[in-house]
Amino acid sequence: MVKKVKAALIIIGDEILSGRTEDANLNHLAIWLGGLGIILDEVRVIPDVGQRIIHTVNECRCSFDYVFTTGGIGPTHDDITAESVAKAFDVPLLLNEEARGLLEDNMGKGNLTEARLRMARIPEGASLIRNPVSSAPGFQMENVFVMAGIPVVMQSMLLDVENRISGGAEILSKAIHVFEGESLFAQMLGEIEECFEHLSVGSYPFYKAGKYGASFVLRSPVKADLDDALKDLKKRITNRGSDYFDGEAPE
Amino acid sequence: MVKKVKAALIIIGDEILSGRTEDANLNHLAIWLGGLGIILDEVRVIPDVGQRIIHTVNECRCSFDYVFTTGGIGPTHDDITAESVAKAFDVPLLLNEEARGLLEDNMGKGNLTEARLRMARIPEGASLIRNPVSSAPGFQMENVFVMAGIPVVMQSMLLDVENRISGGAEILSKAIHVFEGESLFAQMLGEIEECFEHLSVGSYPFYKAGKYGASFVLRSPVKADLDDALKDLKKRITNRGSDYFDGEAPE
Repeated sequence: MVKKVKAALIIIGDEILSGRTEDANLNHLAIWLGGLGIILDEVRVIPDVGQRIIHTVNECRCSFDYVFTTGGIGPTHDDITAESVAKAFDVPLLLNEEARGLLEDNMGKGNLTEARLRMARIPEGASLIRNPVSSAPGFQMENVFVMAGIPVVMQSMLLDVENRISGGAEILSKAIHVFEGESLFAQMLGEIEECFEHLSVGSYPFYKAGKYGASFVLRSPVKADLDDALKDLKKRITNRGSDYFDGEAPE
Repeated sequence: MVKKVKAALIIIGDEILSGRTEDANLNHLAIWLGGLGIILDEVRVIPDVGQRIIHTVNECRCSFDYVFTTGGIGPTHDDITAESVAKAFDVPLLLNEEARGLLEDNMGKGNLTEARLRMARIPEGASLIRNPVSSAPGFQMENVFVMAGIPVVMQSMLLDVENRISGGAEILSKAIHVFEGESLFAQMLGEIEECFEHLSVGSYPFYKAGKYGASFVLRSPVKADLDDALKDLKKRITNRGSDYFDGEAPE
């Protein structure tokens, strides 16, 4: 049996929902988790509203092995992720001395204004997640990892998260591409997927410079299955008189 | 009273969750909806799994004025959005003659293979959404709009969606930027937000080329409030001896 470990990402931020900012964390986290053998199984983008954060965190932490949040842990009035996560776990939000120390070391004791001290308020029982870029830490509360929204900061926090989580079998993938409509290959794709227990076959049409094509992506934790399935697919494509292309998807 | 109209977007696609493809529809739809006075209030990204699509569609269509889905309406075995939406509404999925006609016109009758005919299967009672790019239609079922995942196709479908939805008051926004830490401005931002009933003030830190800064974004459906609040904020920033910058956020 192949063990599946699943994660959810909660992106907290009005700026994403208004379209002002394009999220860059989803794709980075998806690829990073994939490398650890963890499946990103759902993403939610929600506004900076306390009740929504509480509800979403509670729903996701019961349904997924790991939950990651990004955004809302800065010093301003709209940064309400820490207090909302504390409420979700029904624990108090306390001034954390370790976090205060990290901020003091980075900013200097005299510069630790009331606003900046907000960033040292951490739910009781949480452990800090180091932020090598700008010191203000994230935190882990059980299976929930609360991280910054700024991509470079979020990515730096993953260094401290990596040794706290563990995945199942790594999902391997192979892709090939055709420059014909995906519908011509629909039947063979379905048939190949049926042949292997843990194989998933995705068909992703593209449309570039007036030309249609499709990428077929085979994914499986079992390398031998993946190799056999790819060989089978290539043979079937050739047999129907079509060409396929290996390597990166066409840009 | 300011009327608020809220929408949710459901992005259906393993390829987004695996990190293979970067979503481009969220940001486009967010901006497009904003222009119509509709607030994008939640986004969910879920895998190509029938039960997940059914559950998510049913949860969202009860909670939001409008629901948009992208992805999973092509001709291959992993395109299960139409059948899942039919199940969510508990109606049969039928071969739609109008949709078949559109496909025939575009592809020629002889080329309408069994796989392509899948794209003419539409839930009973739905109305079609025209696809000027590649003919295979989306559909509207009550307040749920089912669209393609390929960005250029999705965007072309919005032309046919625009006259079917109506928004509340358009949310106007103004932004200014500073090249100091946002924490220095935290108190004034909170105070200004308190002064106006429908005003929201967001603070979005950035970190570019080793330099910190923040964008302050004021949003309100009431233009006079927005102007007054911006004037107040600029005055307070100047009074504390700081500079602000108008216009686009720094890249």
